[in-house]
Amino acid sequence: MKVIEVHQSVYAINDEIAEETRRQLKESKTFMVNLMASPGAGKTSTLLKTIEALKADYKIGVMEADIDATVDAEIMAKAGVGSIQVHTGGECAMDAEMTAQAIEEFQATQYDILFMENVGNLVCPAETDTGASRNVAILSIPEGDDKPLKYPLMFQVCQAVLINKIDTREYFDFDDAAVVERIHDLNPDAKVFFISAKTGEGFEEWIQWLTGCIDSWNA
Amino acid sequence: MKVIEVHQSVYAINDEIAEETRRQLKESKTFMVNLMASPGAGKTSTLLKTIEALKADYKIGVMEADIDATVDAEIMAKAGVGSIQVHTGGECAMDAEMTAQAIEEFQATQYDILFMENVGNLVCPAETDTGASRNVAILSIPEGDDKPLKYPLMFQVCQAVLINKIDTREYFDFDDAAVVERIHDLNPDAKVFFISAKTGEGFEEWIQWLTGCIDSWNA
Repeated sequence: MKVIEVHQSVYAINDEIAEETRRQLKESKTFMVNLMASPGAGKTSTLLKTIEALKADYKIGVMEADIDATVDAEIMAKAGVGSIQVHTGGECAMDAEMTAQAIEEFQATQYDILFMENVGNLVCPAETDTGASRNVAILSIPEGDDKPLKYPLMFQVCQAVLINKIDTREYFDFDDAAVVERIHDLNPDAKVFFISAKTGEGFEEWIQWLTGCIDSWNA
Repeated sequence: MKVIEVHQSVYAINDEIAEETRRQLKESKTFMVNLMASPGAGKTSTLLKTIEALKADYKIGVMEADIDATVDAEIMAKAGVGSIQVHTGGECAMDAEMTAQAIEEFQATQYDILFMENVGNLVCPAETDTGASRNVAILSIPEGDDKPLKYPLMFQVCQAVLINKIDTREYFDFDDAAVVERIHDLNPDAKVFFISAKTGEGFEEWIQWLTGCIDSWNA
């Protein structure tokens, strides 16, 4: 099998801005989750179920990053949380500078939890530190269990991976053990949760992990 | 609803290289399809079914572009067509220069049809002309009918959109009429085909359209 390696581009290093964002958020006790996934993996519906579980105890804000449209921010506003739509001007992911701009505009340090729903994409968002407290990826059953092989960086940069749409399992060939092994080969410390944003299955463990992280962040 | 427009980056203009590739391919009577979709939409399985329908009549080559792994090129080699794996060095899409390099290495002008399976992504691949004869996007039922709203450019640059996994329709809320309307709002000339790469449903029309395009290309 012949493999061609074509040129590698240079990504702007924005780690300094990301570190400054993280410092600010820690100071204001704002826990920021950078939620990443393919288009259609269920970021918005997972977020809605997550908000439902947390909104009694936390003040929650959501930044919806998209190339275009405002559908997701409208959904979040209806869910009763603060929300803002960020248009990336064609960019395939939020970077630290864009995130910092959005945080300022949104006055996001007023929130206990700030969710950022990144652009639907398994490649670009993984490449850029946004300044989030935690990175979380969603992979859905219909996408297939081979995705960690094809998009390794995404699974390396996340502290948790949510395997979503487990309610559709019987419809697709998806090997649970294989996906966990592939994720742990790339990132032994990653937490993997099997969930259904439709039925709510598996959310208890995910929410428990998340609130544990928030407690450490604010300690 | 407040919408923030963050900075827009400059994309390298590679249209000249793309035009040169297109000229070369036309001269060698090689019809190149740039196949784009989200991760897990079914690019590889759609390609396999398409190849099955065409391989008796055409000499087919496949270029598999991925960030990493060689799984897809191995699958294509087993399907009895020429195949090569292209690693993009972390890039989220093939550009015209990368495509030209790959075509040269692969000696792709020997083929009647050259499929390029682009990196799984609804954003970056839409931004760059690769020099392909036609752009084709796949959107799968589990991803949702709102994707043309969120990733408009992809649906603007394609001559055909394949709505895949229609065998899973009863499992998901997906509005066929709405998706067609959203695609045609962006791109009135786009052909939309509803297919299942699993069952083969809908392939006849898609193959007919494709061979019609090949005939025009070679005329």
